[in-house]
Amino acid sequence: MSTRFDQQMMDLALQQAQKSYDEGGLPIGAVMVEDGAVIATGHNRRVQQGDPTAHGEMDCLRQAGRRADYKGVSLYTTLSPCMMCSGTILQFGIPRVVIGEDVNFPGNMAFLRAHGVEVVLLDDENCKALMGRFIEEHPDIWNEDIAGRTQV
Amino acid sequence: MSTRFDQQMMDLALQQAQKSYDEGGLPIGAVMVEDGAVIATGHNRRVQQGDPTAHGEMDCLRQAGRRADYKGVSLYTTLSPCMMCSGTILQFGIPRVVIGEDVNFPGNMAFLRAHGVEVVLLDDENCKALMGRFIEEHPDIWNEDIAGRTQV
Repeated sequence: MSTRFDQQMMDLALQQAQKSYDEGGLPIGAVMVEDGAVIATGHNRRVQQGDPTAHGEMDCLRQAGRRADYKGVSLYTTLSPCMMCSGTILQFGIPRVVIGEDVNFPGNMAFLRAHGVEVVLLDDENCKALMGRFIEEHPDIWNEDIAGRTQV
Repeated sequence: MSTRFDQQMMDLALQQAQKSYDEGGLPIGAVMVEDGAVIATGHNRRVQQGDPTAHGEMDCLRQAGRRADYKGVSLYTTLSPCMMCSGTILQFGIPRVVIGEDVNFPGNMAFLRAHGVEVVLLDDENCKALMGRFIEEHPDIWNEDIAGRTQV
């Protein structure tokens, strides 16, 4: 179940996505929250840093730095997580993921749920609109970001 | 099936692992090869960069930079891939993974194979010895690197 706080955090993730879009990058943002406090924010940096592993979720984990564990952490992401980010969520034991939308990319929500992660989908219109706009404008960069794989 | 070339590439990955060990970091190295040519090398940089996502395989993909696809790529890693790295291999469609050892960490070979990846295990004594030494010397850092999860 989502809360009003979840929507506030998604709005923050969307700000990160917009920042990336304004830089010419993929508009996918993320926020890490622990016990109600923002630990880190991040966004996709494939274009900005030439780094194929810098999806929004991965960048956010990087910004958060080293941790012994991820108990009590919620990860917010404007777009449903790809297999790289889903595998990362499982390996680090992130217990809760809140997703802006899964229309522009289905991602791996069932896979995450099957492994015990609490997954909340907000179906956020603003997340959908910004990502949809980028895909229309730069289908080549979007396709590169997921290596052409909408499902694994 | 492994080849003599595979062993040569694993020796190169092990050099990367040794470099990381000498820097005080986790001794896990990787090499990316395309059609018989080395594209990139990398190693774990959790300690060196304070980056929890910088496993050896991830660092190697970063060093390789942006690519349209990963057809014809083999990824060599001294240690069996965790779920983050396994998810990444699937998302980017890396068709072949050669692994130094799975004794110090079982990783996700069955998961990769179930998704069509060719997985070769070399059971390399030098890879086992270096990783085993680090785990004995720094169990805390090793445990942090996998968030305490030997299997997902």
